[in-house]
Amino acid sequence: MDAADLGQHISKRYNEELERLRNGVLSMGGLVESQLESAVQAVVVGDSELGLRVARDDYKVNRMEVTIDEACSRILATRQPAASDLRLIVAIIKTITDLERIGDEAEKIGFLASRLASMERPSDRYRELKTLGDHVQLMVHNSLDAFARLDAKAALATVKLDDQVDDEYDSITRQCITFMMEDPRTISRVMNVTWVARALERIGDHAKNICEYVIYMVHGKDVRHTDSEAIEREVIKGGKA
Amino acid sequence: MDAADLGQHISKRYNEELERLRNGVLSMGGLVESQLESAVQAVVVGDSELGLRVARDDYKVNRMEVTIDEACSRILATRQPAASDLRLIVAIIKTITDLERIGDEAEKIGFLASRLASMERPSDRYRELKTLGDHVQLMVHNSLDAFARLDAKAALATVKLDDQVDDEYDSITRQCITFMMEDPRTISRVMNVTWVARALERIGDHAKNICEYVIYMVHGKDVRHTDSEAIEREVIKGGKA
Repeated sequence: MDAADLGQHISKRYNEELERLRNGVLSMGGLVESQLESAVQAVVVGDSELGLRVARDDYKVNRMEVTIDEACSRILATRQPAASDLRLIVAIIKTITDLERIGDEAEKIGFLASRLASMERPSDRYRELKTLGDHVQLMVHNSLDAFARLDAKAALATVKLDDQVDDEYDSITRQCITFMMEDPRTISRVMNVTWVARALERIGDHAKNICEYVIYMVHGKDVRHTDSEAIEREVIKGGKA
Repeated sequence: MDAADLGQHISKRYNEELERLRNGVLSMGGLVESQLESAVQAVVVGDSELGLRVARDDYKVNRMEVTIDEACSRILATRQPAASDLRLIVAIIKTITDLERIGDEAEKIGFLASRLASMERPSDRYRELKTLGDHVQLMVHNSLDAFARLDAKAALATVKLDDQVDDEYDSITRQCITFMMEDPRTISRVMNVTWVARALERIGDHAKNICEYVIYMVHGKDVRHTDSEAIEREVIKGGKA
């Protein structure tokens, strides 16, 4: 084996390590998506057992975060990645933190679903929560998709969805306050509904964070704390460059 | 200048870079502490202007996060740190994310304070919120102190405070539900109180996260998602080694 072969061999193994890391993030994302889906389902159909299962399974998400985090540190130490590889690793370290927090919020929703299942159910069967849940699930799905395809434009489109999610959250909260005022006997139950809505709204924020890391990976520019028009300019400029 | 001088020169500059980074985190922490203090103060004394100032100043926290984050990436790329230096950088990348989120929660509390200031004030002048706020401020302060002194034992003691904060949060929430049931006219106001309490509880979680990164820096072991007794065993074992 000559030096060139060895070089190629090392770089091939390195590429495999990076690929395994990316796949790890996507597996973790898949698990988080399925936890979120079950949690929303548990609220909507009033399935206490399903809610508790989501809460019980959160440790699997946590375990994946620790494993991927360790793999990132190992690659940073042994491969000393530069430029786009380094951006990938830093983005992964941040992404898995947000995925883990999405898992935490799904766990909370699971517990709340179990509590709500034992209470009187409203005639609309939590239609608004279902709609908010669908939109948030779409945000999470699209953010992972943008991550997988390193697609800054798709990431940007998902960032924009967050405004709609925030509006829906505000509307549910206002509605909940009205319900409680009209019939104070519903306060305990409706408070649980506001907490589910709050958890969903936070999941939207985490999906938005992931999208911003994708844009950072692709364009090498930090777009956090920037309004969405400025991000758009950046993505379009980057696309032309 | 011979090679040894040059080596020392490079390592001296590298050490200065790391030191500057640590100081940057502590400055950011100081700003976040002062934002949190003002936000709680604004709620307790009903100072709308102060609340809005906290919200307006959040951009300063965000700016510091981006600056420190870029410095971390630069050091990772140019210095290729290993072992404890690498753990320091990874811990900083995570710590500033939590500090930034504490800033976001302080911003929310600022807005809520401004809203609450225009509403009727309860006779206890939000005593429970003040107590919760004090404990959360202590957690944030101690977590930054543990970070500055790389003190895993202090970090562990702070992790344990989080249980107390969670209990206080639960108690405020239960009390709020009782108030609303007894007098539904208070619902709008009391909902704002529950949101302040929720924001404070989340800040406690972020301070706990920072403490776990400190333990990771010192012991090189990931203690997240581990119960506090297991963390304690780890810290004590590490201390003896």
